[in-house]
Amino acid sequence: MRIHVVNPNSSMGMTQQIGRVARQVASTGTTIDLTRGVAAPASIEGYTDEALCVPPMLEQIRAAEARGADAHVIACFDDPGIGAAREVAVKPVIGICEASVRVALLLSSRFSVVTTLPRSIPIIEDLVDGYGAGRRCRNVRAINLPVLAVEEDQSAANTLLAAEIMAAKREDRAEAIILGCAGMSELCNSLTATTGVLVIDGVTAAVRLAEAVAGTGYVTSKLGGYAAPLEKAGGFGRDASDELRALSN
Amino acid sequence: MRIHVVNPNSSMGMTQQIGRVARQVASTGTTIDLTRGVAAPASIEGYTDEALCVPPMLEQIRAAEARGADAHVIACFDDPGIGAAREVAVKPVIGICEASVRVALLLSSRFSVVTTLPRSIPIIEDLVDGYGAGRRCRNVRAINLPVLAVEEDQSAANTLLAAEIMAAKREDRAEAIILGCAGMSELCNSLTATTGVLVIDGVTAAVRLAEAVAGTGYVTSKLGGYAAPLEKAGGFGRDASDELRALSN
Amino acid sequence: MRIHVVNPNSSMGMTQQIGRVARQVASTGTTIDLTRGVAAPASIEGYTDEALCVPPMLEQIRAAEARGADAHVIACFDDPGIGAAREVAVKPVIGICEASVRVALLLSSRFSVVTTLPRSIPIIEDLVDGYGAGRRCRNVRAINLPVLAVEEDQSAANTLLAAEIMAAKREDRAEAIILGCAGMSELCNSLTATTGVLVIDGVTAAVRLAEAVAGTGYVTSKLGGYAAPLEKAGGFGRDASDELRALSN
Amino acid sequence: MRIHVVNPNSSMGMTQQIGRVARQVASTGTTIDLTRGVAAPASIEGYTDEALCVPPMLEQIRAAEARGADAHVIACFDDPGIGAAREVAVKPVIGICEASVRVALLLSSRFSVVTTLPRSIPIIEDLVDGYGAGRRCRNVRAINLPVLAVEEDQSAANTLLAAEIMAAKREDRAEAIILGCAGMSELCNSLTATTGVLVIDGVTAAVRLAEAVAGTGYVTSKLGGYAAPLEKAGGFGRDASDELRALSN
Amino acid sequence: MRIHVVNPNSSMGMTQQIGRVARQVASTGTTIDLTRGVAAPASIEGYTDEALCVPPMLEQIRAAEARGADAHVIACFDDPGIGAAREVAVKPVIGICEASVRVALLLSSRFSVVTTLPRSIPIIEDLVDGYGAGRRCRNVRAINLPVLAVEEDQSAANTLLAAEIMAAKREDRAEAIILGCAGMSELCNSLTATTGVLVIDGVTAAVRLAEAVAGTGYVTSKLGGYAAPLEKAGGFGRDASDELRALSN
Amino acid sequence: MRIHVVNPNSSMGMTQQIGRVARQVASTGTTIDLTRGVAAPASIEGYTDEALCVPPMLEQIRAAEARGADAHVIACFDDPGIGAAREVAVKPVIGICEASVRVALLLSSRFSVVTTLPRSIPIIEDLVDGYGAGRRCRNVRAINLPVLAVEEDQSAANTLLAAEIMAAKREDRAEAIILGCAGMSELCNSLTATTGVLVIDGVTAAVRLAEAVAGTGYVTSKLGGYAAPLEKAGGFGRDASDELRALSN
Repeated sequence: MRIHVVNPNSSMGMTQQIGRVARQVASTGTTIDLTRGVAAPASIEGYTDEALCVPPMLEQIRAAEARGADAHVIACFDDPGIGAAREVAVKPVIGICEASVRVALLLSSRFSVVTTLPRSIPIIEDLVDGYGAGRRCRNVRAINLPVLAVEEDQSAANTLLAAEIMAAKREDRAEAIILGCAGMSELCNSLTATTGVLVIDGVTAAVRLAEAVAGTGYVTSKLGGYAAPLEKAGGFGRDASDELRALSN
Repeated sequence: MRIHVVNPNSSMGMTQQIGRVARQVASTGTTIDLTRGVAAPASIEGYTDEALCVPPMLEQIRAAEARGADAHVIACFDDPGIGAAREVAVKPVIGICEASVRVALLLSSRFSVVTTLPRSIPIIEDLVDGYGAGRRCRNVRAINLPVLAVEEDQSAANTLLAAEIMAAKREDRAEAIILGCAGMSELCNSLTATTGVLVIDGVTAAVRLAEAVAGTGYVTSKLGGYAAPLEKAGGFGRDASDELRALSN
Repeated sequence: MRIHVVNPNSSMGMTQQIGRVARQVASTGTTIDLTRGVAAPASIEGYTDEALCVPPMLEQIRAAEARGADAHVIACFDDPGIGAAREVAVKPVIGICEASVRVALLLSSRFSVVTTLPRSIPIIEDLVDGYGAGRRCRNVRAINLPVLAVEEDQSAANTLLAAEIMAAKREDRAEAIILGCAGMSELCNSLTATTGVLVIDGVTAAVRLAEAVAGTGYVTSKLGGYAAPLEKAGGFGRDASDELRALSN
Repeated sequence: MRIHVVNPNSSMGMTQQIGRVARQVASTGTTIDLTRGVAAPASIEGYTDEALCVPPMLEQIRAAEARGADAHVIACFDDPGIGAAREVAVKPVIGICEASVRVALLLSSRFSVVTTLPRSIPIIEDLVDGYGAGRRCRNVRAINLPVLAVEEDQSAANTLLAAEIMAAKREDRAEAIILGCAGMSELCNSLTATTGVLVIDGVTAAVRLAEAVAGTGYVTSKLGGYAAPLEKAGGFGRDASDELRALSN
Repeated sequence: MRIHVVNPNSSMGMTQQIGRVARQVASTGTTIDLTRGVAAPASIEGYTDEALCVPPMLEQIRAAEARGADAHVIACFDDPGIGAAREVAVKPVIGICEASVRVALLLSSRFSVVTTLPRSIPIIEDLVDGYGAGRRCRNVRAINLPVLAVEEDQSAANTLLAAEIMAAKREDRAEAIILGCAGMSELCNSLTATTGVLVIDGVTAAVRLAEAVAGTGYVTSKLGGYAAPLEKAGGFGRDASDELRALSN
Repeated sequence: MRIHVVNPNSSMGMTQQIGRVARQVASTGTTIDLTRGVAAPASIEGYTDEALCVPPMLEQIRAAEARGADAHVIACFDDPGIGAAREVAVKPVIGICEASVRVALLLSSRFSVVTTLPRSIPIIEDLVDGYGAGRRCRNVRAINLPVLAVEEDQSAANTLLAAEIMAAKREDRAEAIILGCAGMSELCNSLTATTGVLVIDGVTAAVRLAEAVAGTGYVTSKLGGYAAPLEKAGGFGRDASDELRALSN
């Protein structure tokens, strides 16, 4: 089985961490096809970064599907462009936020999320709400450290995360914690050990779910919201300069 | 890996069908530990059947956990006793309704469910709503055939299902269909072929998800809603006749 | 009029308290037919206890209906097996959680619940949410005392409850409090007096509502979700050993 | 016990029907104190009629409370001014829409409402939604007959209602029907008999619930949303002409 | 363009403040037609005040429409009688709560409301919720000062508001604040300057929106919920004493 | 006042239609600064088109803000990139879907949307739901004509729209209709005339609302979800090739 894992941002460090975690958690016989958003922002912190990372990510998804991917994982906690990715791909597409929410709902009755910057809190709240967690998501918290700082100083991130997890356990009555950034993936297991709270990493959850869904043989329905993009000037996968010129007159 | 699949009802025929599907979809190296609710109702059609099937099912879960199960699948579409099962087990517990909803949400933007008897419609609506599908579940439909009739006359069931799936595509704008009964599992792939609509079977979805979650190493959080049952007279796993007698005075 | 009040757990002490409160609040001319779940857990704290108490409770409901009950009250705050009870009975079935929520919504614009153990908080939140209280239920709180400890040391329970009620008034802006356990029923009126907050007891609310609904002459609709259980091997009220044996081959 | 039943509109015919039903359903020993909105609109069909009927209704509630009412029933299906009534009264106030929704939720898993004019459909939908019925209320239907026409030609109303109830059973899978107008109360039982569907009348439900809640001894919480109206120029129960004149300068 | 701004209460001071703000924010060429509820309560604090202010307000709306109003603004934060006003008027009707919520949702991802008395908190919560703000409204807070006290001692109100706004920024992560009382309108801009948080005034928002909607040429749909009130004894705009007398026999 | 109206797609014909409508509805003294997504898809039909149109649109918003825009209108019914636009701009940003929903909620109690292709139905449902319309949006319908076909054959579009509007009035009880595509703007007024249903055009609504909000002086809060994008390699407005190269090693 071949799982395509795309880091939608351009950071090589984060991409490498994602790759290490994905390979570690994958089943024997699974190949991880690891890509990143080459011209994308170095980190995704807010709606604009999210918007800018989607077009290069869609190219990676199309290319990976052509290379034979059995499923795709979007390894950014905002699940950027997930609807578009499901249009572009036939094979299942799984975001790490969606995957970790699904897993958290199986293993706890109430959970909280801990992310990087406070500006991402409303984005994640809306996302988690859209995935139907409702009041089962107690709270979204932030350690107030930018994404790349988490990546660069994992020890500082670890300390802040441990404190926030304990606060979530005490104040939110959270039974499990979702790490709200792919750059925190390698801290997951030690945080569980330190805090005594189940800590869930989205890359881990998504890679395993991708294998699972790929193995069912089910593919993305093309009957409605996720039908393939229509061919058009300026559309996906067209060199449409002539047509665009015509439209402009 | 060892996946415990429990059919909460007592029907041997349905248990065998569930076993065939589970073994077929499981990864190489996975063992399916198949059980059923020995003294449970022969089929589960309504709240009372559901209530009666849970105590024997919990015994099966405890026993399977003791035999080394890495995860448990509850193979009845009402997901009966899933909260209790998560208290009794440490290893992940996955219901086939929850699993198929999670998978449908990954592969379609809108889906419908087709079940057996109309009396199960409100039960399934509430369940699917509780899993957060909201308006993404367009409709719950019934073919008006009892569970055991589906099991016994798969050809009749197939005809009725195909008609209802086409109606769901046309009237509900459903992009995918979830089969709302474990006794329909073996009809799934041919229904996809016949109708051109993605049809999802809960046993397939749940067995694959069980493997996936088991492989993460995460286990059920014992911090809150899913903490182990407390020891008490009449409680789970106690021969409590003496204490019960004392309480009664 | 004859109101059947079933304590789904097996504790004689709690049953007696429930009986005293029920008889005190009942109208002149109403007979309270008091039963308990004879082989059920001694207290209901979590999903497993809840699951185990339902089958014996259903037997009590059937027997009481045969004895001429005009309505049934389920005197456990989790309202265990309420859907099943409505299938088994024709006469109205009222849970003490549902009753107290309905009454609280008539008498206050915002309320909180105070229960025994923190593990029951998510269960009660989901229940109250299912009854449509939405944001009108401000909070579910726990005094962190097991059910039987509440029963046995009412004075300790009273002190903890008074403190939690004052906190709910101050922090939640609760205008009324629902006591989240049948074992707190006899503390209700003195808590109102002590705290100056309207305190609502579910047994009181449910017995009065049971009389009210019974007096309308309306009975449970048998057209859909609450139709009588179907007859089947292993089903409700069948000695089905032969059929179960046949099914198993 | 003394139950004050106020018909918020001024129609004597409807008031008399409401009185007959209330007295018939009330317990032995209950006195029905029947009033109407003397200067109010003759029927309540829309937001403006509703707004105009509230001030005279509040006067009736205050006067009835002074006469010793133990509870109040607002006998119009829009539950007009229910929040204001709960401020003005200390004794419980129950609207016939709220009462019939609470009863329908106890006796069926899904219900529909049938009212008079289509213009009332959005009003009732919002009301029923606010009472938390959610998807358990399948539909709100109208027979397209004005309130006073229902009152005047009960036979025509009966025919239209029977047809709409059968449609609700077939198309909505409604298990119970709520009659959405106090002027339909006397048709209730024969409609149940004719259609085979449980039909619920709000006056019946509310009078019984009023007795029930009054019997608990609980009264409206005055701690927040339902605190007594503040004294002020132009406020409730003040001859405030001097103060209003002062304010106007 | 002619915008009718009605202060539903009778306070001349508040009416004058509302008039000053409305005239200041209106476009060149817009005339503000300012009225108040002449016999209405002096301030609106709770459901009863709200109920009493609506009938005189509806008269003002009808009269202003006859004078040629292009739109109407209801300048009380409870948006009293807004449905009735939309029945009575053909031209657009805008409440200051609704207007400020719509504007806050355009300019912030999360906001809080600060109002006068705590008793108004549940009323405003329900209103804001009905306008679909959902979790985007973080909190409704109160400074615990009556409406007329705010009007009379703007300096005290300013100090309390500034403190509450800072608390909302810190504790609710509010990005914007809505002032929950028309009597706070003139404090708005200085509060933004002092606190560094975007503060939104409903009168400002509603007058501008009224001009905007009036300029589209769209008018209130008369097809359903907002159809004109039906003519009837005691109905809007009828001297119906004869008919009411007839009805009463 | 200067209102920037951006058509996120690249079609010159649609841009011109949008410009005509915007200029016609704008107040005297308002300048319409009209732009389009130069390298964007020719029409926006699905998630991928939406994703591709956002980066060029954000450039237009930044440039228009630099040219002195007082507010921005996003003239595509999917409101693509609205969160990102609010980060990039300080001046208010209004989408035509959001604007038309806000206006429809002021003028009707229930409305439906009519759009182009069925594939856009789930997208619009989710959007309208996110704007809090809830059950007040009765239905989203499609005429099954691509965006550019609507633009090119307005007469065909008009016929299909009129039929669908009549169906919405009859079947959905819609009191108002929102046109779900900017390419339908010029058909709006004649459709109201033909059908007798209030028809609302998003460009009209948004331009008027943009003027309104700009006139309040309020600007987008930069305290949380809509804070300016952070500067970073690959981020918005950076020639970041060197940094991206560094990150990649």
